[in-house]
Amino acid sequence: MMGLTRQDFERRDAEDPLRLFRDQFHLPEGVVYLDGNSLGALPKRAQERLSRVVGEEWGEDLIRSWVLHDWIGLPERVGDKIGRLVGAGQGQVVVGDSTSVDLFKLLAAALSLRADRTVILTEQGNFPTDVYMAQGLIELLGGRHELRSVSTHELSAAIDDDTAVVMLTHVNYRTGALLDLDALTEAAHAHGALALWDLSHSVGAVPVDLDQAGADLAVGCGYKYLNGGPGAPAFVYVARHHQSAIRPALSGWMGHESPFAFEEVYRPAGGIRGLLVGTPSVLSLIALEEAVDLHLEAPMTLIRAKSKLLTQGFVDLVHQECSQSGLRLAGPEEADLRGSQVSLRHPGGYAIVQALSRQGVIGDFRTPDILRFGFAPLYLRHVDVWDAVRTLRDIMATGSWDRPEFRQRASVT
Amino acid sequence: MMGLTRQDFERRDAEDPLRLFRDQFHLPEGVVYLDGNSLGALPKRAQERLSRVVGEEWGEDLIRSWVLHDWIGLPERVGDKIGRLVGAGQGQVVVGDSTSVDLFKLLAAALSLRADRTVILTEQGNFPTDVYMAQGLIELLGGRHELRSVSTHELSAAIDDDTAVVMLTHVNYRTGALLDLDALTEAAHAHGALALWDLSHSVGAVPVDLDQAGADLAVGCGYKYLNGGPGAPAFVYVARHHQSAIRPALSGWMGHESPFAFEEVYRPAGGIRGLLVGTPSVLSLIALEEAVDLHLEAPMTLIRAKSKLLTQGFVDLVHQECSQSGLRLAGPEEADLRGSQVSLRHPGGYAIVQALSRQGVIGDFRTPDILRFGFAPLYLRHVDVWDAVRTLRDIMATGSWDRPEFRQRASVT
Repeated sequence: MMGLTRQDFERRDAEDPLRLFRDQFHLPEGVVYLDGNSLGALPKRAQERLSRVVGEEWGEDLIRSWVLHDWIGLPERVGDKIGRLVGAGQGQVVVGDSTSVDLFKLLAAALSLRADRTVILTEQGNFPTDVYMAQGLIELLGGRHELRSVSTHELSAAIDDDTAVVMLTHVNYRTGALLDLDALTEAAHAHGALALWDLSHSVGAVPVDLDQAGADLAVGCGYKYLNGGPGAPAFVYVARHHQSAIRPALSGWMGHESPFAFEEVYRPAGGIRGLLVGTPSVLSLIALEEAVDLHLEAPMTLIRAKSKLLTQGFVDLVHQECSQSGLRLAGPEEADLRGSQVSLRHPGGYAIVQALSRQGVIGDFRTPDILRFGFAPLYLRHVDVWDAVRTLRDIMATGSWDRPEFRQRASVT
Repeated sequence: MMGLTRQDFERRDAEDPLRLFRDQFHLPEGVVYLDGNSLGALPKRAQERLSRVVGEEWGEDLIRSWVLHDWIGLPERVGDKIGRLVGAGQGQVVVGDSTSVDLFKLLAAALSLRADRTVILTEQGNFPTDVYMAQGLIELLGGRHELRSVSTHELSAAIDDDTAVVMLTHVNYRTGALLDLDALTEAAHAHGALALWDLSHSVGAVPVDLDQAGADLAVGCGYKYLNGGPGAPAFVYVARHHQSAIRPALSGWMGHESPFAFEEVYRPAGGIRGLLVGTPSVLSLIALEEAVDLHLEAPMTLIRAKSKLLTQGFVDLVHQECSQSGLRLAGPEEADLRGSQVSLRHPGGYAIVQALSRQGVIGDFRTPDILRFGFAPLYLRHVDVWDAVRTLRDIMATGSWDRPEFRQRASVT
């Protein structure tokens, strides 16, 4: 059997309908960047607009920019744009705060919408901050609730009439495994529970249709596949039919019906704006808006098709080139069952990731033995996949990763 | 009696020991900006560093910047720097989230530190978001607590053995009146209550010494006198002796003892870092750091002295130039009793502020009849005060403010 060659990957690039998007990003020379699932690359237009907003809007127009340049409208405007990426009709998504804080808002809302129920159900191995925020809320509420974690295949069966909310991350941050958003939402609803989806590792890379799935609540990260910049604000989705029933627990002035009336009593804004809290981070929102605008130019079907070709190409090549390396696939074998990420396992994972980085192939490591590689369809080439795996092959074949300098832990990513 | 003349203000500028700081800011031509208490001006160095961080750190070094450029250290590093502006020793201030979210964290902490008490005491007319966040927390906790609002002169007497926390804003956003932080902190402690100070309208313009006052908790805004940029993150202060007793209600991964171990159970970081929640907004923190560094070059005694000269000059000139205008002073007559802000009252306040803006004098309006003027000592000149009041005088004398175009409400500031 003929193996895959670099020419195969070059041909994929030549045929890639998204190939022109790469030029929209600032990318370092000589680097294969497979960590866009942790921090997305810089869109050139975000850099340009930030420069303009800082110099002209902040610098020249100052306070008047809130109206003149509609800074005040940013959280809802960018929210609606993100809504188009996740299948949310207008008026259901708003941007502000971090994913963690947004999770708190939605968990508090869920527990109040299902006040007679006590369980937050989640998947074992969900992203830690999701779990931590639930633990903090439960403790704050006096311990009347319970966070229950079950394995993936037990999820559906674990939902019962005491489940207030099923809190799940669509794409697992360690393995890249994709949950069935539609089926699990339906399973939650069958028992009267709410479905809260964390889309941090999906938005911008994996198709999501929140409205069609009937999802109740969702959050997502702005700085991974969305390319909004380091620490970009997150977004929240609240299905329209729940909005009027929610009294925001984080009841800040930006979520007030009339923020500039400076009333003495909090009255939540009707609609999704009630989920806002404090003054939004304008600079971060500006960068995120440009990044989202860029995503909206690429059809999600093409993004998903390329994403699957990238991840499957990587998996196929690892099988072909690294079969003796001791590396094992950590996630699904089938491209349909994973997000835009491939994870491998190896006891020397940390050092291997460092050694790869030294050779210009940037992935990241997740304890205890996971090598993560994210594939951002808008700026990665298929030849990047080839080059990355060949570098990995060389490192494994020569054992060059197994050095003290690579084993020394310093990473915070 | 000889009145004040422009020459008097020119002389004050010539003698101003802080006069060289103005050149450190980007300021629009032909504008007297008296709204730095709402959105501070752009420090040139913030613009330069942002440009470098976006292009080089985000664009080139990508995920590696968390370590390489110590993005991960920003919240604590900038926190410690702000600490120097508010009399907080190292390890007690951290930056992240909005003032509103930070208030929630501290109120939740206060109610847990004083679990046997039920009252949050505040001043009538405190900034709305402070009040709203307290209302939301009380509702979330099931209504067992009460938010009690009393007038300024009743504050001390209203503190009793059921008061968990006295939540006050140091400088009133409407009148500019300054509360006695030391005395009210002491009054709170005399009854075993905690003192939580909102320094949003003080930090960077008014001396504060949290450690010396024995304050328990504080928050403050990054985008007013601190010049951190629109929506810059806020800061929280927790006195060291309380830190180990606090279990953060917003328990996110960045506040975990070991964020990158991805453990399943939240363990708060020892110290102030436990107050962090989600991934910090790097771009906003970078701008804020530069702004704070600039402030640290100016001795606070000189800032306060200039601030008092500016506000008193404004008050004196309004008396001299606008005595027939119907404008009344809304705050204290004595400079010692106000922050770096002067407020006037007039039934046509909104239109007057618009008319001033048309003439290049930017203040803002607060319902129902307050004209607010903030005086940022690092970039305002004394002649700006003269020019502003002369413009105000002309507008009032000619009645040119009283036009439909100025009465039309659109402002969100």
